[in-house]
Amino acid sequence: MGLSKNLFNDLSAGNKGQRNLITDVPGVKVGQVTVDDGKVHSGVTAIIPVTGNLFREKLPAGTCVLNGFGKSVGLVQIDELGTLETPIVLTNTFAVGTAVNSLTRRMLAENPEIGDSTSTVNPVVAECNDGDVSDIRAMRLTESDVEQAFANVGEEFEEGAVGAGRGMMCYDLKGGIGSSSRIVEVDEEHSYTVGTLTMTNYGYLQDFIVNGLPIGKPLSEMIKADKEKEEKGSIITIIATDAPLNSRQLKRLAKRATVGINRSGGYIGNGSGEIVFAFSTQNRVSHFAKSDLDTVTRFNDNHIDKFFRAVAASVDESILSSMVHAESVVDRKGRNRLGLVDACHKLSAEQPEYAEMVKDALDLLGVE
Amino acid sequence: MGLSKNLFNDLSAGNKGQRNLITDVPGVKVGQVTVDDGKVHSGVTAIIPVTGNLFREKLPAGTCVLNGFGKSVGLVQIDELGTLETPIVLTNTFAVGTAVNSLTRRMLAENPEIGDSTSTVNPVVAECNDGDVSDIRAMRLTESDVEQAFANVGEEFEEGAVGAGRGMMCYDLKGGIGSSSRIVEVDEEHSYTVGTLTMTNYGYLQDFIVNGLPIGKPLSEMIKADKEKEEKGSIITIIATDAPLNSRQLKRLAKRATVGINRSGGYIGNGSGEIVFAFSTQNRVSHFAKSDLDTVTRFNDNHIDKFFRAVAASVDESILSSMVHAESVVDRKGRNRLGLVDACHKLSAEQPEYAEMVKDALDLLGVE
Amino acid sequence: MGLSKNLFNDLSAGNKGQRNLITDVPGVKVGQVTVDDGKVHSGVTAIIPVTGNLFREKLPAGTCVLNGFGKSVGLVQIDELGTLETPIVLTNTFAVGTAVNSLTRRMLAENPEIGDSTSTVNPVVAECNDGDVSDIRAMRLTESDVEQAFANVGEEFEEGAVGAGRGMMCYDLKGGIGSSSRIVEVDEEHSYTVGTLTMTNYGYLQDFIVNGLPIGKPLSEMIKADKEKEEKGSIITIIATDAPLNSRQLKRLAKRATVGINRSGGYIGNGSGEIVFAFSTQNRVSHFAKSDLDTVTRFNDNHIDKFFRAVAASVDESILSSMVHAESVVDRKGRNRLGLVDACHKLSAEQPEYAEMVKDALDLLGVE
Amino acid sequence: MGLSKNLFNDLSAGNKGQRNLITDVPGVKVGQVTVDDGKVHSGVTAIIPVTGNLFREKLPAGTCVLNGFGKSVGLVQIDELGTLETPIVLTNTFAVGTAVNSLTRRMLAENPEIGDSTSTVNPVVAECNDGDVSDIRAMRLTESDVEQAFANVGEEFEEGAVGAGRGMMCYDLKGGIGSSSRIVEVDEEHSYTVGTLTMTNYGYLQDFIVNGLPIGKPLSEMIKADKEKEEKGSIITIIATDAPLNSRQLKRLAKRATVGINRSGGYIGNGSGEIVFAFSTQNRVSHFAKSDLDTVTRFNDNHIDKFFRAVAASVDESILSSMVHAESVVDRKGRNRLGLVDACHKLSAEQPEYAEMVKDALDLLGVE
Repeated sequence: MGLSKNLFNDLSAGNKGQRNLITDVPGVKVGQVTVDDGKVHSGVTAIIPVTGNLFREKLPAGTCVLNGFGKSVGLVQIDELGTLETPIVLTNTFAVGTAVNSLTRRMLAENPEIGDSTSTVNPVVAECNDGDVSDIRAMRLTESDVEQAFANVGEEFEEGAVGAGRGMMCYDLKGGIGSSSRIVEVDEEHSYTVGTLTMTNYGYLQDFIVNGLPIGKPLSEMIKADKEKEEKGSIITIIATDAPLNSRQLKRLAKRATVGINRSGGYIGNGSGEIVFAFSTQNRVSHFAKSDLDTVTRFNDNHIDKFFRAVAASVDESILSSMVHAESVVDRKGRNRLGLVDACHKLSAEQPEYAEMVKDALDLLGVE
Repeated sequence: MGLSKNLFNDLSAGNKGQRNLITDVPGVKVGQVTVDDGKVHSGVTAIIPVTGNLFREKLPAGTCVLNGFGKSVGLVQIDELGTLETPIVLTNTFAVGTAVNSLTRRMLAENPEIGDSTSTVNPVVAECNDGDVSDIRAMRLTESDVEQAFANVGEEFEEGAVGAGRGMMCYDLKGGIGSSSRIVEVDEEHSYTVGTLTMTNYGYLQDFIVNGLPIGKPLSEMIKADKEKEEKGSIITIIATDAPLNSRQLKRLAKRATVGINRSGGYIGNGSGEIVFAFSTQNRVSHFAKSDLDTVTRFNDNHIDKFFRAVAASVDESILSSMVHAESVVDRKGRNRLGLVDACHKLSAEQPEYAEMVKDALDLLGVE
Repeated sequence: MGLSKNLFNDLSAGNKGQRNLITDVPGVKVGQVTVDDGKVHSGVTAIIPVTGNLFREKLPAGTCVLNGFGKSVGLVQIDELGTLETPIVLTNTFAVGTAVNSLTRRMLAENPEIGDSTSTVNPVVAECNDGDVSDIRAMRLTESDVEQAFANVGEEFEEGAVGAGRGMMCYDLKGGIGSSSRIVEVDEEHSYTVGTLTMTNYGYLQDFIVNGLPIGKPLSEMIKADKEKEEKGSIITIIATDAPLNSRQLKRLAKRATVGINRSGGYIGNGSGEIVFAFSTQNRVSHFAKSDLDTVTRFNDNHIDKFFRAVAASVDESILSSMVHAESVVDRKGRNRLGLVDACHKLSAEQPEYAEMVKDALDLLGVE
Repeated sequence: MGLSKNLFNDLSAGNKGQRNLITDVPGVKVGQVTVDDGKVHSGVTAIIPVTGNLFREKLPAGTCVLNGFGKSVGLVQIDELGTLETPIVLTNTFAVGTAVNSLTRRMLAENPEIGDSTSTVNPVVAECNDGDVSDIRAMRLTESDVEQAFANVGEEFEEGAVGAGRGMMCYDLKGGIGSSSRIVEVDEEHSYTVGTLTMTNYGYLQDFIVNGLPIGKPLSEMIKADKEKEEKGSIITIIATDAPLNSRQLKRLAKRATVGINRSGGYIGNGSGEIVFAFSTQNRVSHFAKSDLDTVTRFNDNHIDKFFRAVAASVDESILSSMVHAESVVDRKGRNRLGLVDACHKLSAEQPEYAEMVKDALDLLGVE
């Protein structure tokens, strides 16, 4: 297909990382399982935030609920304690219970003290509703699917209609999993990476724009997506960084995901679960601390805008990347749900008057 | 045992309801399953908030996180939309995933449109960690346990070391499930019921007081609970009412649960998940509304203090009732974990100098 | 100047109201005072939300803090009680105390019972820092300036570098006061108006875009605004509607202001106080209610997206309108701070290669 | 009068500090001005949190709104940035604007860069409504009253019906300003001080209890305070510590003020503005940071319960201390508003059957 990671870039937001994936943040790994049997188009995407024992050495973390029409779990404790102590599992809405069970068992296996000599553990699972494409009522995903996603983790991973993103729809086109990263230069000696991963399942095609180019309008007329319907679905955003940001600052970063989400045409619809998790791999918090006091590096908010810009640009790119990489999928009702690239080519072929706009859009998106 | 529901009462907070249970609010039903095999002491308590189809005709609802060291699920959507659309399931921390699965299946069975022609559903599951008494790592509860709890629902239900409360410890004594209610007279024509149910698993015995009587101090010396340990565990509070309160007002009621919790000696400990759900059975919100507009009764905040007082008194009594009704239990390690009444009798027998204080406490608690 | 109110419009967000001002919402009035003595460039903008006694018949209201680097007052009580009981005064940061005093005196004069036989009153004052243009340290504004702004209220009012917006800078160009409105058709029988007013003092010129057109980049090179500096300043947004929305729903509308703010290039900078107030003129709440119960019309969230889209579009237009109407101003240091139209003409004259882009931008902005 | 600082003490919450005042936290100073002309009974209490330039070297801080029927200012920015950059001024509700103006001028005088070469400043002013006792509508306090309060600062200060507390009523008796402190032993090498100061203006006399002793009931029958009225008024709590707690942790401490407030009989009434500010004098945050990165000491939440207990005990004692020290005051309508000690003596004299209970209460309160 010739897809690449050369989407347009706002240089003021920092350079892209080496892979232009969330795994550019050292220690972050992603693994996925895709399930597709013709009726069920779903899966699991697992994010391991850091090396080592995460329960015993937790990460500073923050969340933001941009709109709460969603069923993600784990936010309450992150908000109270400012820490993340498990990997994050993404899946469909009705697989949340199964993912919680699997993730709990994984943590119990790794940490015999949990629930015995020490406290319990706070599994983090986030979801979107892929029921438009997949038979979500079948509740088909199993704990072994979640385990397999973890077995597949690595620094390279696929984007598009894969993993938990298999059945997601974004701007009425195929959505899925997308990722990107930015390098933030703090001073001459210190630079950090901000990586983001999005599961995209939101938006109206008529609103879709690429760097200001309103390609969504002709696409929506071609596809005749019902313009009257409200924005359903959701978008989950994961933000990782190796900068020494605390939970309050990470919550601030999480809030800026909305800037990236809005850039392509989102407006935080009523039915959209727009939930963001942000964590730092620095300044880990010991579960079994030898002393109540330790010493950490602190980042002054004065120049946090560099991180805000990086988040906005990276989330925008992650969303577009999820769409650029998403192939077309025949859904549970036999309808062909177009990916963005297929839709663009179809528009160009059927309505040559839009050929130039399509070419501009594909150029912006780095599609050859 | 002669236990009754005659605990002391602050009359300024309103009279008690007929059963002095949350089920005094018309439509509320509670069902429970207790699991006890010597190692596992756990269970499920299910609360059906109202008659009729709850998904299609939702209830106004609000939540409050007094302290967020907890893993309860469903709060995000209640906070955004102000509605409750499923029953509430209480269980232990590691059964949350299973309860979510079971509750989801229940909702899917009742509503074929969920996840197909309409949106998904937001299951509400709340938990405490019973791992001190029960082998929580066994993850022994099954979806059929949850189903059985629903099969058992009714307006009468047991309190004490039963259902989800089987393995809970409150003030270092046996905790569990407790409930009570208050009648709020709004004006000559209108009176409403406030019912509360608590799952109690928090507190330090040395802090425990009954209507100001510091019975916890001698009890803690007798039991020698480790005074250095931090308050772990949690308390879940459910508040039901038939007053026409909206989600903002219900959130305000939920916050007042802390007054009741503190009255017996709680201080919102670091390790305590203190989470409150409040709902009203009036002014239901249609999922498939024929019109965007309807007409509802509104309660002016001017006199909402009557409800705040009722919540504080009822939550206090629910906690004490959970303890009064809780029998002693031999825990997973073979230790006999005393119930409050057994502990009082033991103190009286072993240390006669406290016999009078014990008698006063038991009188306050309505124990003959 | 030939400026008009014909900015581009996203028709999916509803038609514009008759005046395309916040005063299209029946009962809303705006009055302003502009102070300009060469050093001080500041003023007051007063918004009267509704006819009749606002303290005795309060309005449902909600707020949202998008970013809290700001000193606006009154939010705490609006969040708790969900009501607005005074007009809203906009001014500069160091005039907040004076505005609070003046607004308090105004309320005391209108309501002899306040602070005597009934409770106190919650004045709402919002601010941005105009210190870049104006000598804010002089604390020059007086209570009589605030009174004069109220004396000037009407349904017609000026936009641009006037009133509280006199010294504000938006995207490194002159900002100020802007306003617009949208009509939301709920069903065949019911349509409502959403009006917004913004005080604009945020953003980076290089990020500025008009409906996707990146006119900010060449403008910023011309003006050589320091690209390294962080976004300072703030944006205050007022949302008015006559739709029967409750405080929870108004809070949701308030959150969508960020979509409009981001559309022209905002990214919610660290130093920006982005604060939103939303109120409805329906379902007023009586201070001296004869009964605790009354009957109100309720809007179902199912179709609230229509309002979200209206807010996003109207806030975007209000911001652009503030800039289109803002004349250039010589600031406290003698620097000529260009308005958007003057800057566009200058760019076109000095760099003819941008003449076409400038023409496109001015066409979009409805400038002849 | 023989009043002392020997109130009952929960030793598990730590020992009292040397002065048993908020000023036991090194650097904290308090100054007050009392205004009393027969009609106006009001004043100002100023808290200087630390030595040195507070704007340039800010303090970590957090807030909590237990109930938001209040008009305090400055919370928005503290919540966003987690810092306190000005002293805190307490006064009556209608003096907030004047206090903001005075505090702003004070900060401008100390820092010529504010509003010129750097950002503005976030004044923190908290209030209760003393209108029951004082002619609050007169708006009598002036900026010079605020200045004078600052001129009076020191480590020793009066408690009771003085300063901003002059006209406050607590549990229908005279309230005012109270303070206390606790020493928290973290480990063998580290101990810290937690100091609290309260301005008390809340509660119902019938609910008032002293360490469980229900002395409020007979007092309320004697005074015949209207039992039907709702709890009005408010309580402001300031928490200071020299422990290295961050803004998230300080927010958690602030929430625990409610435990102390409830212990004497509060229930977070509808009309009560219960607002808490907490700050640490450690880990100051530079306004003009040379580097974006610095190194700080961090406290692990594992043992934060020690601080929670200290806050609960100290706030409880501060409230009681405000009442113990408050003399009776003849209010704006000529009514004699009894202080707690006077009321106790009156009860003892008029109704000898309560003499023993009064003696017990006064013993608990350390009154000879």
